[in-house]
Amino acid sequence: MARNETAVATGGGPWHDKHAMSRATRRRERQERREKASQIPRLPWRNLTNPYPPIEILSADQLEAIHMASLRVLSEIGMKVLGADARERLAAAGAQVNNDDRMVRCDPDMVMELMALVPSSFTLEARNPARSITIGGNHINFAPVNGPSFVTDLDRGRRAGTYDEMCDFLKVLQSLDIIHIGGIGSFEPLDLPADTRHLDRNFAAATLHDKIWSANLLGGYRARDALEMQCIVHGIAYEDLPNHLVTMGNINTNSPRQLDGNMSAGLTELALAGQPVVVTPFTLLGAMAPTTLAGALTQQNAEALFGMILCQIIRPGTPVVYGGFTSNVDMKSGAPAFGTPEYVKATQAGAQLARRYNVPFRSSSTNASNVVDAQAAYESEMSIWAAVMGHANLVFHAGGWLEGGLTASFEKLIIDAEMLQMMAEYLAPVTVDEDTLALDAIAEVEPGGHFFGAAHTLARFETVFYEPMVSDWQNFESWQENGSLTATQRANTVWKQLVAEYEPPPLDPGIREALEEYVTRRKAEINAGPDLLDYDM
Amino acid sequence: MARNETAVATGGGPWHDKHAMSRATRRRERQERREKASQIPRLPWRNLTNPYPPIEILSADQLEAIHMASLRVLSEIGMKVLGADARERLAAAGAQVNNDDRMVRCDPDMVMELMALVPSSFTLEARNPARSITIGGNHINFAPVNGPSFVTDLDRGRRAGTYDEMCDFLKVLQSLDIIHIGGIGSFEPLDLPADTRHLDRNFAAATLHDKIWSANLLGGYRARDALEMQCIVHGIAYEDLPNHLVTMGNINTNSPRQLDGNMSAGLTELALAGQPVVVTPFTLLGAMAPTTLAGALTQQNAEALFGMILCQIIRPGTPVVYGGFTSNVDMKSGAPAFGTPEYVKATQAGAQLARRYNVPFRSSSTNASNVVDAQAAYESEMSIWAAVMGHANLVFHAGGWLEGGLTASFEKLIIDAEMLQMMAEYLAPVTVDEDTLALDAIAEVEPGGHFFGAAHTLARFETVFYEPMVSDWQNFESWQENGSLTATQRANTVWKQLVAEYEPPPLDPGIREALEEYVTRRKAEINAGPDLLDYDM
Repeated sequence: MARNETAVATGGGPWHDKHAMSRATRRRERQERREKASQIPRLPWRNLTNPYPPIEILSADQLEAIHMASLRVLSEIGMKVLGADARERLAAAGAQVNNDDRMVRCDPDMVMELMALVPSSFTLEARNPARSITIGGNHINFAPVNGPSFVTDLDRGRRAGTYDEMCDFLKVLQSLDIIHIGGIGSFEPLDLPADTRHLDRNFAAATLHDKIWSANLLGGYRARDALEMQCIVHGIAYEDLPNHLVTMGNINTNSPRQLDGNMSAGLTELALAGQPVVVTPFTLLGAMAPTTLAGALTQQNAEALFGMILCQIIRPGTPVVYGGFTSNVDMKSGAPAFGTPEYVKATQAGAQLARRYNVPFRSSSTNASNVVDAQAAYESEMSIWAAVMGHANLVFHAGGWLEGGLTASFEKLIIDAEMLQMMAEYLAPVTVDEDTLALDAIAEVEPGGHFFGAAHTLARFETVFYEPMVSDWQNFESWQENGSLTATQRANTVWKQLVAEYEPPPLDPGIREALEEYVTRRKAEINAGPDLLDYDM
Repeated sequence: MARNETAVATGGGPWHDKHAMSRATRRRERQERREKASQIPRLPWRNLTNPYPPIEILSADQLEAIHMASLRVLSEIGMKVLGADARERLAAAGAQVNNDDRMVRCDPDMVMELMALVPSSFTLEARNPARSITIGGNHINFAPVNGPSFVTDLDRGRRAGTYDEMCDFLKVLQSLDIIHIGGIGSFEPLDLPADTRHLDRNFAAATLHDKIWSANLLGGYRARDALEMQCIVHGIAYEDLPNHLVTMGNINTNSPRQLDGNMSAGLTELALAGQPVVVTPFTLLGAMAPTTLAGALTQQNAEALFGMILCQIIRPGTPVVYGGFTSNVDMKSGAPAFGTPEYVKATQAGAQLARRYNVPFRSSSTNASNVVDAQAAYESEMSIWAAVMGHANLVFHAGGWLEGGLTASFEKLIIDAEMLQMMAEYLAPVTVDEDTLALDAIAEVEPGGHFFGAAHTLARFETVFYEPMVSDWQNFESWQENGSLTATQRANTVWKQLVAEYEPPPLDPGIREALEEYVTRRKAEINAGPDLLDYDM
């Protein structure tokens, strides 16, 4: 029988028949192994690093041109800063501040002197020390989607998110070790009041998973609540926070060239406590930034530098992360596009700019599809490869993002985890030694024969290859007999099983009680109507 | 209004409203532009190159260890060669040949001396000179799926392929400039007799598209028919073929360590005519090769070197391509898996080995899904990124491959073309100059404003971003109103429109007539029953 690269796909041929003889044994062994744990195969926790050099899409000259242009934006054109407190701090540090039009300009020297204070890498302590993560260098960390108001799954469709469903989402996230950051629930629990739901989200994050979770920075009081609750979880005093990096927060500039009061307030609270701040300009090409990549990157870089130096002014040495969220819009509708070629380039150029300043970089895994289909997958893969090849250190929205970030999808979360696991396995090192070169096995198997029964194979076959959660490699006939399910339909089964099998990570009952007391007290205070927004807008 | 990275996805907010004012104008302009041509946006033809350095997953020591081990396979363990003609040629060139067990062993010096004859790069002439391609260096060329017996689309489902449908597939391929190689019809036309259908496929390839098409190498007479027909198309004599690279062919070794008679016969015909041969070992980890990547690569490398030096023995300097098709199997079922982490590593390591010998590299874009879903997309993206980041020069099966290569899918072809186009746009250079840095535009737009009306935007918005064929960036409500179509459903519309709009590329009527005469004559000869297999098996 002539074998070629397509004929084998039948799953037929002599090597297949011979292989079948040992299948019963292996099936039994696999079954036994599975009965000990969940039937959903998953990769164990790994602190991922990228062993390959980053792809650099800008030449050294191009990088420098964008750097210089962005310094001109900051010194000549300026940023509008809505918060009076932030303007005061900037003025005291030497910026030219006009309190009438609220414009702030910074000299290049001031910018670069402050950027020199930024640490190149830092480690965030999770409540489970085995879930702590390092951000910087060649480290890569994946975080789930955050921000949507909607949630969707195949059973119930698209709907407003609730707290119970948000907790289910957190349970799945805790079950997926490939997601390094647990987050605060991924979508808004719209059945809870807007002013206090951050407390419920923090509580869920602190109790349902044992990974890192970020502070909501929409206003100073939300940031402080997150920090207070982290102090309870970690058993430390608020004043002692700068000695313990336990959380982080993300701010978006109100691009172009504007920082609003809520964002600067949240940034200020985190920086005062010495906690890392991710500064992410929101520079969609053609909408909030020029249509050209060079122009959008110039603006992104100016805004990112501005947020990062504000952190250094507030507390020198505050860890910061350069966030890139530059993509294009659909010029037909004005809708944002994600995972596009422009997005990939912007991501990798952004990471290159971050390396210019020796600061960690944050990107995202995003897509603009309205359904978990081929588009959702290929736009996400473009985002993931952009991030990994460009050396992003933090990949936000990497689990469950759908519809340009408007909806969190349970099925997409599973498919994202599969894609991330595949990437993690790709990044694992190759071993080349006498054993793996397998010359004895090659000599043992006759020409045209097969390796199924070789000792070298039998010693390894159970664990040697990546075992997928969702991918189905059955032949067409078997796949049909099993219901002709798409990857998305199979993902539906997976997440429900993970929710059903979820077990909460251990937590000291005293900590749980203290968190409950904090949430109860703060809800009462907030509902009593104090001035929540304690910074000028 | 506070903007953040998720709120914008509503397509709402003040910038969107302001943008809407100019939408009518732009919609009209776009409409006018489209009425001139097809409504399916497509990238124009590009001879693609990769400007970035390749990802090297093997260290220099690891690479050398695999090289040395594979030389030991060739010198100590040997290859089984079924064709007597090939064994004779190998013996004459200094190999140790045993005609009883048909084993052939080659010394390392012989291997390396012959490999030194291989050109590092070559150019294939298409009948339309604008569709000629260069293979080697940083060049990347995409070819369609080849090999399946089945074809599928959403309207008619999965079925045995016919000649008419094969012609439709070729029409779509001709319409997609991102696919550099037109091929010979992608799937078997099972309504035609097996012994002569290669003639019909060649005729379709020569007339329906103006790109490169390969010779079927399953036996010497099929290879010669392809070469004769290429001579008619290019107006050259058979003896003059070595001075005109007009086609190529792929052979698979019958792994492990075997070369069958059909394959060596086809290889021989091509090499005698000086046409390029792609030598692709078929080394699925755990089935036809060891389970370890190092072992499978050692075997792949030995088999690839063997095929490539056989070409050099037949005609020194024959262009050859190192083919990598190493993936793993599902150890549960024995079914091949594609686009897996193991596949990505094998692809990039294979490309690295090819560079070791200064020879072009061929990989594939593959997946094992039975349906055009998220899995089909993410496995294909893994394959494409593996190929591009690893610097494959030829990416076979990059349009329409489904079900591990058993089926050609019309919808997958469109989605593949979208993914390839996105990659091509990603590889296009970034321009950084005063104009693209856009400092004037940045200064012009007020803080918190938008760029939709900026002169810089208006001068560029029509063409500045990649315009997709399939991706849908509408918001959820609009998408629902338009029928809630998945990417695969939208791809169904696209390919049918491309078939409907297809126009054949110009062809000299005399050439067409000569091709028809050749096909008619050869069918009669073959049906008269000559000895088709003119080489020992």
